[in-house]
Amino acid sequence: MDRLKKQIEFIIEIDKVKNIYRRTDLFNQKDRRENDAEHSWHISMMALILAEYSNDKAIDMLKVLKMLLIHDLVEIYAGDYFVYTEKIEEKLEKEKEGAQKIFGILPEDQKEEYLKIWHEFEEAETPEAKFATVLDRLQPILQNHINSGGTWTEYNVTAEKIINRTQNMKEGSETLWNYVEEIIKENIEKGILKEK
Amino acid sequence: MDRLKKQIEFIIEIDKVKNIYRRTDLFNQKDRRENDAEHSWHISMMALILAEYSNDKAIDMLKVLKMLLIHDLVEIYAGDYFVYTEKIEEKLEKEKEGAQKIFGILPEDQKEEYLKIWHEFEEAETPEAKFATVLDRLQPILQNHINSGGTWTEYNVTAEKIINRTQNMKEGSETLWNYVEEIIKENIEKGILKEK
Repeated sequence: MDRLKKQIEFIIEIDKVKNIYRRTDLFNQKDRRENDAEHSWHISMMALILAEYSNDKAIDMLKVLKMLLIHDLVEIYAGDYFVYTEKIEEKLEKEKEGAQKIFGILPEDQKEEYLKIWHEFEEAETPEAKFATVLDRLQPILQNHINSGGTWTEYNVTAEKIINRTQNMKEGSETLWNYVEEIIKENIEKGILKEK
Repeated sequence: MDRLKKQIEFIIEIDKVKNIYRRTDLFNQKDRRENDAEHSWHISMMALILAEYSNDKAIDMLKVLKMLLIHDLVEIYAGDYFVYTEKIEEKLEKEKEGAQKIFGILPEDQKEEYLKIWHEFEEAETPEAKFATVLDRLQPILQNHINSGGTWTEYNVTAEKIINRTQNMKEGSETLWNYVEEIIKENIEKGILKEK
């Protein structure tokens, strides 16, 4: 059972994302950052509950879930880059290497399948990848909104920066992008976010 | 947008499973227990990678993932009962109440959908529920195996107890049940597990 052995090795290795911590805190709990496993679970749940808001109503939800469940595995080796990092080239390079390394543990056919799904998510061009991106962007915005600023305040993030980084959400969901615009507006009015 | 408001309220409420800790530790890290969000993510990943071992090859994987992603949400209100608890009646009662409460936050149609999926998982009679159960049982066995006994040693769990509690796995996957039997045998030989 060499095949099963490789699969079990992969299952054990991916446990490490539970120790990769993000910049955002849990909801209503500003003393504990979220890790990649929790984040991936949460956005998968969001995909299920908010599926009706996808611009494309005929998307393959199983593929969306695959993307969301695996998208951060590359960070086991690349680490977590802040969503507003300047080091875009370095991030892409390291994540590509990370993808080869983590999916390379799997049997060849599964390695190819999951590398393909990961690249599809990263490129954000198919309807599934566009909708998956919506959830990945929406979750930290919701967290910071509920946490009265959270990471935005801590890292001096402006409304302009959030909009630049997240407005591609509208390609996956007009409705959820409109909802984010409302959140940003509310936080500007409250003085939590500066416009520029 | 009363509907979206309810859905967002649900998404925020379920964040609390990130604070429900299980009895098992992370792989290779005996100082940190796993929480329900991490566990749900991990067994969803296992379902994807090990799908080929389902006895029934025609299962609906999207439904399996829905089951695994939501199955522990009831613990937000019921708490985590040890897999070898004696308080079976109390556990079932509290979890049923928990299900009404958590899924009751959703719009009516989604409440009905997810209550139904949760009950289907709990009853473990459909092919999807049987396969989902396999992953939920297999993960802590793997964790304890890799952690040289882990919770088994801590709570004096015998091979007999593990077999009684987990042998229904074979209804979902003969192959993975055989693999578990090998693990149990190996741990008896090593002196980590007592037979009775």
